[in-house]
Amino acid sequence: MVQINSNYLKLKAGYLFPEIARRVKTYSDQNPQANLIRLGIGDVTEPLPKTCRDAMKAAIDEMGTVSGFHGYGPEQGYPWLREAIARGDFQARGCDVNHDEIFVSDGSKCDSSNILDILGKDIQIAVTDPVYPVYVDSNVMAGRTGSADKAGCYEGLTYLPINAENNFEVQFPETPVDLIYLCFPNNPTGAVISKDRLAGWVEYAIKNQALILFDAAYESFIQDDSLPHSIYEIQGARECAIEFRSFSKNAGFTGTRCAFSVIPKNLKGTNSEGQQIGLWDLWNRRQSTKFNGVSYMVQRGAEAVYSKEGMQEVKDLVSFYMDNAEIMRTSLSNAGLKVYGGENAPYVWINVPEGIDSWEFFDQLLKEANIVGTPGSGFGSAGEGYFRLSAFNSRENVNEAMRRIKVLT
Amino acid sequence: MVQINSNYLKLKAGYLFPEIARRVKTYSDQNPQANLIRLGIGDVTEPLPKTCRDAMKAAIDEMGTVSGFHGYGPEQGYPWLREAIARGDFQARGCDVNHDEIFVSDGSKCDSSNILDILGKDIQIAVTDPVYPVYVDSNVMAGRTGSADKAGCYEGLTYLPINAENNFEVQFPETPVDLIYLCFPNNPTGAVISKDRLAGWVEYAIKNQALILFDAAYESFIQDDSLPHSIYEIQGARECAIEFRSFSKNAGFTGTRCAFSVIPKNLKGTNSEGQQIGLWDLWNRRQSTKFNGVSYMVQRGAEAVYSKEGMQEVKDLVSFYMDNAEIMRTSLSNAGLKVYGGENAPYVWINVPEGIDSWEFFDQLLKEANIVGTPGSGFGSAGEGYFRLSAFNSRENVNEAMRRIKVLT
Repeated sequence: MVQINSNYLKLKAGYLFPEIARRVKTYSDQNPQANLIRLGIGDVTEPLPKTCRDAMKAAIDEMGTVSGFHGYGPEQGYPWLREAIARGDFQARGCDVNHDEIFVSDGSKCDSSNILDILGKDIQIAVTDPVYPVYVDSNVMAGRTGSADKAGCYEGLTYLPINAENNFEVQFPETPVDLIYLCFPNNPTGAVISKDRLAGWVEYAIKNQALILFDAAYESFIQDDSLPHSIYEIQGARECAIEFRSFSKNAGFTGTRCAFSVIPKNLKGTNSEGQQIGLWDLWNRRQSTKFNGVSYMVQRGAEAVYSKEGMQEVKDLVSFYMDNAEIMRTSLSNAGLKVYGGENAPYVWINVPEGIDSWEFFDQLLKEANIVGTPGSGFGSAGEGYFRLSAFNSRENVNEAMRRIKVLT
Repeated sequence: MVQINSNYLKLKAGYLFPEIARRVKTYSDQNPQANLIRLGIGDVTEPLPKTCRDAMKAAIDEMGTVSGFHGYGPEQGYPWLREAIARGDFQARGCDVNHDEIFVSDGSKCDSSNILDILGKDIQIAVTDPVYPVYVDSNVMAGRTGSADKAGCYEGLTYLPINAENNFEVQFPETPVDLIYLCFPNNPTGAVISKDRLAGWVEYAIKNQALILFDAAYESFIQDDSLPHSIYEIQGARECAIEFRSFSKNAGFTGTRCAFSVIPKNLKGTNSEGQQIGLWDLWNRRQSTKFNGVSYMVQRGAEAVYSKEGMQEVKDLVSFYMDNAEIMRTSLSNAGLKVYGGENAPYVWINVPEGIDSWEFFDQLLKEANIVGTPGSGFGSAGEGYFRLSAFNSRENVNEAMRRIKVLT
């Protein structure tokens, strides 16, 4: 019988969001009349921008003609999209990123897990705790960890707490690591990183010859102009960082599927003989061999995000969700809960009431207020005692959810 | 400096199709007036079916409303698409495949390489020779092979010739293997497999406790009713086979991106302790963790393939390309070339003229006839001496290409 990848068996229970979906389904099946408000998974709710829809429909019309038909596109993405991204997201901010360093993909979840394909097995990895579970699980599946302990921490990984005790400022690892995942604005805590602190991480990475995987999926929610949107705003980042970006949260593409990674040509790794090898070449080979590019119409939709109208629509969407976040921050504070995040990120991170843990609070909110959130412990052991609420919902649902929580507390 | 996956350095040159693209670009840049006819990469050319376009445009309109907006979908695909597939492609042929055994994806290239994630590292693998390069390269990248020899054969892989000498009938491996890739109708040779012979492979796999990865991307081109479209037409296949299918070639989705895999719940592998583990569970976990599902509008487009109108449009597309294949078979034979395939597959496989190798024939056709084909040796060492021409092009281009070849020979 074929041998399986036994590393999968080290994974703890289900991946977080399917587990939430399972509990919600059980409750809904038993209580079909319940009017659930979903503030759990960070999934947008507002319509797709008209500019994007029009661009995609025009692309579909093209596909109905012989001359406008598009078959296989470049695995890396169409040049016009890569150029629009390089200009709009990087060069406009003074970042030195060229269009051929942009790799268009169908999602940051894929990119942030697939990137491990090109890295060696025996590397020391640091993640924040709490953390987006994909960073951890994809390493477990690839055999880069030992087993998990009772708290769900995997042997061999370096966990860097990000919590109220350290003012949500991740500290450098005590012993050097080779790979560091950083996500700012942070999922799940909603914390941010200043330019100075990010510069400290770049300096750390260069000094320790480490690679930073910088997840900037939430950069569009930054309201404070002093905060960095990209790690390439920091001098030296081209030598030590890969950045992940997505159209999911800014333009509402969670169901449309488009994202991208930036792999600077300066980045190097070493092979088993100690020779330096360009990571760009490895990723380009990986994508050419194991991926066939993103849907033509979806890429046209993503390109439209960079038009004047598209940028305005994205700005309006972001404002709408950030107004939700502000309402949530105020209401939850007034309800006596300690609230973090939600100022430059679409996530509000709260302390769960004394005496219960975060899954218990999940069940309580689900059953007593019909609200779906995300238990902090689902993001790692240091997330215990916290709870994440997402600002992605209609104004009506956000107001109603806040009313229900006020009654509950 | 971060350690890279040194297995990538074992890969020979570029992946085949980017290498062809590079040679074609060099020639085009030097000869901008050349009217190239591309019969190389198996990429469709005819417009996307109207039924699919209409369904995708309706889906985009839905996405413009609050009530019709779709965010993250199930990682496995929407139930309505999985059900349409299970009914239309399997149950309609008497195959016992349930909708929850269908995993919708963005491409068979991804599926056939990503499936390796869930398998153990120390397994014995057999591929045909010649073969679709992704099967080999993805195993090299994952460290399941040694280095390549001069002929491009990787140490540790079992190569099973499929050529004129064995009448394009793949023979069983001399020593048992754990994993076997079979693709029928075959890419690149255009060969087919009878039900009896496929039953022989299922019997072999069950007897040797091996897993078959059956790539049926070209099943819609089968003209001979006696040939199997799915491996699940064979008794016992649920115990030993995964099947890959794609909308790329039948409905012209190469640029739209949708495919699926079938993972029967009966399939088992063993972990390092010898316990039996369900492959369905592993793949479900892999997809939930590392993938975020296919674009909603694209899934609606794929669903439309199973409507009455959609099925007729697909049938018409297939007929069009198969008429091209027939024209090619006849013209190439008349030009004195030995021709295989093209009867139940969109690929015509020809012997290159005496005295030159298949890359030389590639260059000759490119430079003297401005025709882009695919050298057989790009598919493996046993492909040397052969050349693949694809039937995916306009009638006008196919006729013109045949005229040019006639002049050349």
